[in-house]
Amino acid sequence: MISILKIGGKVLDDAQQLQALLASFVQLPGPKILVHGGGKAATDLAARLGLPATMVEGRRVTDAAMLEVVTMVYGGLLNKQVVAALQALGCPALGLTGADLDLIRAHKRPVGTVDFGWVGDIDRVDADRLKWLLDGGFLPVLAPLTHDGQGHLLNTNADTIASNVAQAVASFAPVRLVFAFERPGVLRDPGNDASVIPLITPELYASLKAEGVISGGMIPKLDNAFEAIAMGVQEVVICLASALPTIDQPGFTGTRIRQE
Amino acid sequence: MISILKIGGKVLDDAQQLQALLASFVQLPGPKILVHGGGKAATDLAARLGLPATMVEGRRVTDAAMLEVVTMVYGGLLNKQVVAALQALGCPALGLTGADLDLIRAHKRPVGTVDFGWVGDIDRVDADRLKWLLDGGFLPVLAPLTHDGQGHLLNTNADTIASNVAQAVASFAPVRLVFAFERPGVLRDPGNDASVIPLITPELYASLKAEGVISGGMIPKLDNAFEAIAMGVQEVVICLASALPTIDQPGFTGTRIRQE
Repeated sequence: MISILKIGGKVLDDAQQLQALLASFVQLPGPKILVHGGGKAATDLAARLGLPATMVEGRRVTDAAMLEVVTMVYGGLLNKQVVAALQALGCPALGLTGADLDLIRAHKRPVGTVDFGWVGDIDRVDADRLKWLLDGGFLPVLAPLTHDGQGHLLNTNADTIASNVAQAVASFAPVRLVFAFERPGVLRDPGNDASVIPLITPELYASLKAEGVISGGMIPKLDNAFEAIAMGVQEVVICLASALPTIDQPGFTGTRIRQE
Repeated sequence: MISILKIGGKVLDDAQQLQALLASFVQLPGPKILVHGGGKAATDLAARLGLPATMVEGRRVTDAAMLEVVTMVYGGLLNKQVVAALQALGCPALGLTGADLDLIRAHKRPVGTVDFGWVGDIDRVDADRLKWLLDGGFLPVLAPLTHDGQGHLLNTNADTIASNVAQAVASFAPVRLVFAFERPGVLRDPGNDASVIPLITPELYASLKAEGVISGGMIPKLDNAFEAIAMGVQEVVICLASALPTIDQPGFTGTRIRQE
């Protein structure tokens, strides 16, 4: 079983929490892949540089200056800090963007009613090269950047990268995708952390959406998860970073997403 | 024969010149490694962030804030832009710092009369992992950053990285190290670009230093080159980036550094 862990902004912004998470992660058995998001470091750097945040429909537009910022922060600062921290834990990590090894090819999102700028939608993940890295005993650490094969880097959602990478890995090995989340799982009642839904199948997902229990930002996250499941990923788990060490134990708290 | 090319700041700062250089580089026969320096992008970013440049004895001190800047610029922006450009040329490039794959382990330079901060002196290069990457058909692109194995990234001179990497490669294959330089080679008369010294052996180097023909910043560069030669690198070449395509042709202009 290959484990793919996606970590997001909040964990990256807290050095102590990150260190604890990485220490738990390296103790998971079997080959592993880490996918990281952006955190607020890119927003902070853009603000310090006086770059205006161009928001459309509540989402940030990646203009040329912002692409440089995210390339520096995601591909440089965060990625290399995580790699150096994993090496210090004795783990042979390798930081990558989708441009490295031509691992994730994407295309610039077409301009519709909104021009999101240098944002990439994934075309393919190179499963053979991922397998080659894992067979070599290495731990790929993926930044949320892809490329178009024409020399352009592209800002790409980390959840989507995690899901697409999991699907590629599923073509050669059993795989579990874990999203380290800010809450203990998918909640039936957003005000109550004790209301974690332990298992969501496609049928339950449909009814939870119909009831309005799942809405807003959880929908793209779960759509990504179900896409991965449909493409052969054994399970997707959404849990607190701190729950990672107990993921295979009876007392585990988190949401498992499975075909049935 | 494996070719290692080191490119410096001036080339990195000029997108057109860089593109032309990469196009020539990918046409060299055989396996290849690229090592890049910093250019002025890091200085520019530090200035835009209002970070004071701390200089001691004419050299920049890498304090914690500056380490973040160089990690962003060298490990992120420059490294990934070069990788994406090489991919666009059909070349399977892989951007790396010394932390990735634990490729280059270094130690923080001890504080003597000067504290250079987060600057690393190289302890070892992992030749087996470099060989594994080259055997896989990939082109490593190395940023001038190493790590100490304790979780710290370190700013490390790109010429020194190139020389140490060449020495590691020499343990398993014939290797040529090329420094793309701002002048057509090592000049007998600094005011005359036509005064390139075509071949420098250890004996000639000693006499050129004694005569004062070679002095200043050329001495550490040539010391690096002669260290590489002494450790089994077949030759070191110092030439203009634009001379790269003619490196094995009779009309080539540049300085070759060889044991004899």
